[in-house]
Amino acid sequence: MIKPLNDNVLLKIATVETKTASGIILNVSDKEEENIGVVIAVGDGKIVEGKRVLPTVKENDKVIFDKYAAIEFEYLNEKYLIVPETGILAVIE
Amino acid sequence: MIKPLNDNVLLKIATVETKTASGIILNVSDKEEENIGVVIAVGDGKIVEGKRVLPTVKENDKVIFDKYAAIEFEYLNEKYLIVPETGILAVIE
Amino acid sequence: MIKPLNDNVLLKIATVETKTASGIILNVSDKEEENIGVVIAVGDGKIVEGKRVLPTVKENDKVIFDKYAAIEFEYLNEKYLIVPETGILAVIE
Amino acid sequence: MIKPLNDNVLLKIATVETKTASGIILNVSDKEEENIGVVIAVGDGKIVEGKRVLPTVKENDKVIFDKYAAIEFEYLNEKYLIVPETGILAVIE
Amino acid sequence: MIKPLNDNVLLKIATVETKTASGIILNVSDKEEENIGVVIAVGDGKIVEGKRVLPTVKENDKVIFDKYAAIEFEYLNEKYLIVPETGILAVIE
Amino acid sequence: MIKPLNDNVLLKIATVETKTASGIILNVSDKEEENIGVVIAVGDGKIVEGKRVLPTVKENDKVIFDKYAAIEFEYLNEKYLIVPETGILAVIE
Amino acid sequence: MIKPLNDNVLLKIATVETKTASGIILNVSDKEEENIGVVIAVGDGKIVEGKRVLPTVKENDKVIFDKYAAIEFEYLNEKYLIVPETGILAVIE
Repeated sequence: MIKPLNDNVLLKIATVETKTASGIILNVSDKEEENIGVVIAVGDGKIVEGKRVLPTVKENDKVIFDKYAAIEFEYLNEKYLIVPETGILAVIE
Repeated sequence: MIKPLNDNVLLKIATVETKTASGIILNVSDKEEENIGVVIAVGDGKIVEGKRVLPTVKENDKVIFDKYAAIEFEYLNEKYLIVPETGILAVIE
Repeated sequence: MIKPLNDNVLLKIATVETKTASGIILNVSDKEEENIGVVIAVGDGKIVEGKRVLPTVKENDKVIFDKYAAIEFEYLNEKYLIVPETGILAVIE
Repeated sequence: MIKPLNDNVLLKIATVETKTASGIILNVSDKEEENIGVVIAVGDGKIVEGKRVLPTVKENDKVIFDKYAAIEFEYLNEKYLIVPETGILAVIE
Repeated sequence: MIKPLNDNVLLKIATVETKTASGIILNVSDKEEENIGVVIAVGDGKIVEGKRVLPTVKENDKVIFDKYAAIEFEYLNEKYLIVPETGILAVIE
Repeated sequence: MIKPLNDNVLLKIATVETKTASGIILNVSDKEEENIGVVIAVGDGKIVEGKRVLPTVKENDKVIFDKYAAIEFEYLNEKYLIVPETGILAVIE
Repeated sequence: MIKPLNDNVLLKIATVETKTASGIILNVSDKEEENIGVVIAVGDGKIVEGKRVLPTVKENDKVIFDKYAAIEFEYLNEKYLIVPETGILAVIE
C-alpha cells in the first residue's frame, strides 16, 4: 500500500471518456487523460497552526490536477502520480 | 459537473466576436480568443483569516484572463480552463 | 466595457510621436510604442489592510509600463493590455 | 557512516519489483526505479520554534521521493541520494 | 515631462568618458556606457509603514545601475531608462 | 588564510576512495568526487535573533554538499569551494 | 569617486597570484581571478530595524565573491564590480 505523506494525494490517471450523440458517457478509449485522475489515497494533511488539516478530496474522487505539480512513478507495473493538495484544482461530480 | 476547489475558476474559451462597420457585434468566427473566457463555475474561495472569501467573478461572466496562469484540459469532448482567481484580470460588461 | 479587477490597469498602446526641428510634437507615425500606453480604465484597487487602495493613475493618463508585466489581448478588433499597477512606472504629463 | 544533517534523508535507490500473473512480487530486475528509495539514515530533523522535529520516515522505509529535490553522490563505490524531508512524498507499506 | 511613480528613477545613459595620459577627463566618445546613467527625475518614493520614503539619489546624480533591473523606452526621439531605487547601486561623486 | 563570512563553509574537494574486495578503504584515484568535500574553515555563523549560531560542521569534517549551492574558486594554485551551511547535507563519520 | 549605496560593495578584480616551489607568493600574471576582488569602497550598510548596519568588510580587504551576484561596469577605463554584501563569501587574510 502506498501511503501519501502530509498534504500529498496519490492519483491514477483516468482513461478517456466520450459522450455519444445520444448523451451516454462511455469509456471508449485506452488513451489517458493528461489532467484528470482518480484519487487512490490521501495523506494526513498539512500542519496548520499545530493541527493536521485533512485534504478536501477523498478516495475515488475524480479530479482535475495541475500536471506540472505532479510527480510520476511506477510501482508493481502500475503508473501513479503524487500531487500536493494545492495542485488539485477541481472535482468532477 | 466540474466543481472548482478553493479560489479556482472554471472557464470556457470564448469565440471571436467582430464588430461590423455599422457597430453591431457578431460571433462571426469559430476561432477562439486566447485570453477571453466565460465563467462556467467558481470555487468556494480562498481561506483568508479562517473564512472563505468568494471569488468576485460569477457564472456567465465574460472575463480576460492570464493564459500563463491557466491549466487546460478536455472533458467529455469539451475544452476547459482552470485559472486561480488572481489570474482573472478584467470583466467584460 | 472592459472593467479591470483589483489593481489591474487597462491600457491601449500609444502611437509614436515625433518632435520636429522647431519643437512641435506630432503624431507622425502609425508605429506603436512598445512601453507607452494610455489608461482606458482602472480597477477598484488592491486590498491593503482590509481597504481598497485606488490606483494612482487614472483614465487618459499617458504612462510608461513594464511590457513584461503586461497581458495582451484583442477585443472587438482592438488591441488592449492589462498591467498590474506595480507595472506602471511613470506618468507623462 | 553517512549522517544526514537537519531534515535531510539518505536514500538508496530501490531495484525494480514486478508482480507475476499469480500475484507474487519479485525483484526480477537490476533496473533501478527512478522515484523509489529505501531510507538508509535520517537527520535530527529541522528546528521548528527552537525544537528539533524528527523526520516522519525512518530507516528501512521504502519511499516515493521527488527526484528533482534529490542530490546524487557516490561513496565507496555505492550510489546514494540525499533528499530533504519535504521531498519524501509517500511511504510504501 | 516624465514623472516616475513610487520608488522608480528615470535615467538617461551617460556617454563614455576617457581619462587622458595627463589625467584630464574627456567626453571623447558617442558610445554609451551600459551601466552608468544620469538621474533625470525621481518618484515620490516607496511607502514604508504608511510614509513615503524619498529615494536617496536626486536629479543630475551620475549613478551606476543594474541594467537587468532597468526598463528601456523611447519618448520624443530620446532614449530613457526606468530603474527601481534598489537597482541604483552607487553614485559617482 | 581564507576566512569564510557568516554561515559560509570553505571546502576542498575530496579525492575518490575505493573499497577493496577485502573491505579496506583506499585513496586509489586522483579523480575528484563531485559532492564530497573536506571542511577547511567555517564562518562565525548566521545571525539568528541577534546572536551568531555557529555552523554544525567543523574543520576536517568530511561532508556531502549540494554542488549547485557551491561557488568554486582557485587561490594560490589550489581549488576551493564555498558553500552556505544549508548546502552541507551530511557528514561522513 | 564611486560611492556604493546601502549594502553594496565596490570591488576591483585581483590579478592572479602564484606560489613558487619555495613558497613565495608572486603576482606573476596579468590574468584576472574570476572570484577574488579587492574592496575599493563600501556603502553605509543596509537598514535593519531602522538602523544602518555597516558591511563587515572594509577598504583593501581581499575577498572571495559570488560572481553571479556581481554587476560589472567600466569607468574612466577601469573595470569595477559591485556586489551586495551577501555576495561577499570570505576574506583572505
